[in-house]
Amino acid sequence: METIRSRGRKIVVGVDESEESMYALSWCLNNIIIANSHQTNYHDDYSNTTTTLVILYVKPPPPVYSAIDVAEYLFGKNDVVASMEEYSRKLVERVMSRAEAICINYTTNFNIKVEKKVGSGDARQVICGAVEKLGADMLVMGSHDYGFFKRALLGSVSYDCAKQVKCPVVVVKHPKNS
Amino acid sequence: METIRSRGRKIVVGVDESEESMYALSWCLNNIIIANSHQTNYHDDYSNTTTTLVILYVKPPPPVYSAIDVAEYLFGKNDVVASMEEYSRKLVERVMSRAEAICINYTTNFNIKVEKKVGSGDARQVICGAVEKLGADMLVMGSHDYGFFKRALLGSVSYDCAKQVKCPVVVVKHPKNS
Repeated sequence: METIRSRGRKIVVGVDESEESMYALSWCLNNIIIANSHQTNYHDDYSNTTTTLVILYVKPPPPVYSAIDVAEYLFGKNDVVASMEEYSRKLVERVMSRAEAICINYTTNFNIKVEKKVGSGDARQVICGAVEKLGADMLVMGSHDYGFFKRALLGSVSYDCAKQVKCPVVVVKHPKNS
Repeated sequence: METIRSRGRKIVVGVDESEESMYALSWCLNNIIIANSHQTNYHDDYSNTTTTLVILYVKPPPPVYSAIDVAEYLFGKNDVVASMEEYSRKLVERVMSRAEAICINYTTNFNIKVEKKVGSGDARQVICGAVEKLGADMLVMGSHDYGFFKRALLGSVSYDCAKQVKCPVVVVKHPKNS
């Protein structure tokens, strides 16, 4: 069995605007990544062990066209598009800044390489596609505590991804949802 | 955040007769447990880090009564009950022996405490109950590659458990199913 110790490893953490995903990132850093990173200095066998942490954010799909049409009628097409793009850009910045703030304490002290990736479209498809394309060893995701109706409507991205991707998947729940 | 590094940790691995669950056990030992166990000698902060690996096997529920009734009619009640008990005992022995054989290389060289537990009844309920009762930090399970009809009929124990338990869950797929 080829192990992630024997050739370094690539861990993808799916993040979004939620507390749950930020908690999953922290949990992963504290309980999975740090441990292995220490090994780089401890034992010759592990001298090549590095962890590449890929923080993956998938931008929400654009709103339905009817809503855009109404907004365009009221405010003008260019304003609406620019406003939406600005909102989307700020959302990406905010999520990635939070994720970076969580990682910074670890990257300065441990042998971890952080990569940020932003996708767009259906979260399930983008995450599963990225995991496969990157050849990830592990996918880590937070678990939302949606109620029955929201879950029935939206489904669960983390569980759907867990079913689809080929690599091991860690689903992390926020303690407040436990 | 309390981490599993700071106070040792307890990892429950659900096993059954399948290759998938044995692969999940191997994967967990190679890629999650060994790494942390090394730390016991590397850094003072980790001197108290131990891993308790709980191997949990849930015996299949007894066959439906109509089948037992027919067998009892043909072979006598005592013979049938004794035969079923013997089969169940051997199944437990076989699964646990395989799991032990996988663990033995690691327990002799690393600071891992292995506990074996056997439950009986509905696998989902027993596994989720055990994880909660034991205060596990992580649940690791293999993922079966059931076809559509079997999956629709049986559901997926690993994904159902992932939804129910409070701790992080790792779902490991066998490469042959990937």
